[in-house]
Amino acid sequence: MEENCSFNITSIGVIETPYYGKAPYQPVEDEDEEFCIVLDEKYTDGLRELEKFKYIYVLYYAHLISRELRMVISPPWTVAGKVGIFASRSPVRPNPIGLSVVKIREIIDNRIYTSGLDVFDGTPVLDIKPYIKDLDSKNDANSGWIDELDDSEHLALHIKGIPHDY
Amino acid sequence: MEENCSFNITSIGVIETPYYGKAPYQPVEDEDEEFCIVLDEKYTDGLRELEKFKYIYVLYYAHLISRELRMVISPPWTVAGKVGIFASRSPVRPNPIGLSVVKIREIIDNRIYTSGLDVFDGTPVLDIKPYIKDLDSKNDANSGWIDELDDSEHLALHIKGIPHDY
Repeated sequence: MEENCSFNITSIGVIETPYYGKAPYQPVEDEDEEFCIVLDEKYTDGLRELEKFKYIYVLYYAHLISRELRMVISPPWTVAGKVGIFASRSPVRPNPIGLSVVKIREIIDNRIYTSGLDVFDGTPVLDIKPYIKDLDSKNDANSGWIDELDDSEHLALHIKGIPHDY
Repeated sequence: MEENCSFNITSIGVIETPYYGKAPYQPVEDEDEEFCIVLDEKYTDGLRELEKFKYIYVLYYAHLISRELRMVISPPWTVAGKVGIFASRSPVRPNPIGLSVVKIREIIDNRIYTSGLDVFDGTPVLDIKPYIKDLDSKNDANSGWIDELDDSEHLALHIKGIPHDY
């Protein structure tokens, strides 16, 4: 068994978003804003046939995160208690690799225009993968500890990044 | 815009699977075999509340991949043509970070027992994230170019890793 191997990874491009100072916690559907993954040109051929998928996974490196790593955290909007870092989607993780599922709007050359991406402008992209219905869409999935909160429906709005007034 | 930043990532544990010489292309449901993610003990507290989720994402580093990186590939079982590397789930990618959605069977201390994981024994784990129904399960997803193949239903069995006789 190998232990604590280190690996070097390199960005393949950057994500352009309207978020400079702060970003929503999860992707927001906002038709007025532009979200674009710009790959280095040497990877343009790697996008062939990608546009046939409705959704993609975007893996990125949360490079601006500087908060202290803790194993147990209290997620925003919850007062209910503490959860392990691996039971949360917090960007403050041993490896700050973020994962979002987004919709493809259009692909032009090395630019993938997408639905809302909850990251800062300039965030380095590590990988793009097709979201394949048969593999990735789990109808019997749940929302874990989120389902148990008194206010779970309200919290779901926050998780989805849907603006609301209450 | 930052270009081609490099980052250092470190394994947080290893995946124990029955696969030494070869592994299936995607997770197989096999009740007889044991699949276990063993985290380094310092991360055990990070698993608190994770067991309440049915599914998790496992991010791993495909460390045994040595094939040459190509931008356009012909996925196994397809003769239909070539697709970009980012339109495939091939492990031979600019950053060989693998992603699987698996079911949690049981968590004991630092050990997460899961449904089938399509990786070699000893594969380094980079991250565990909860699969959250509201965020990650997309009912309107498709299977992109796979849907267009004449034999797409048959191919779906391969993608899901379901054993079959034809």
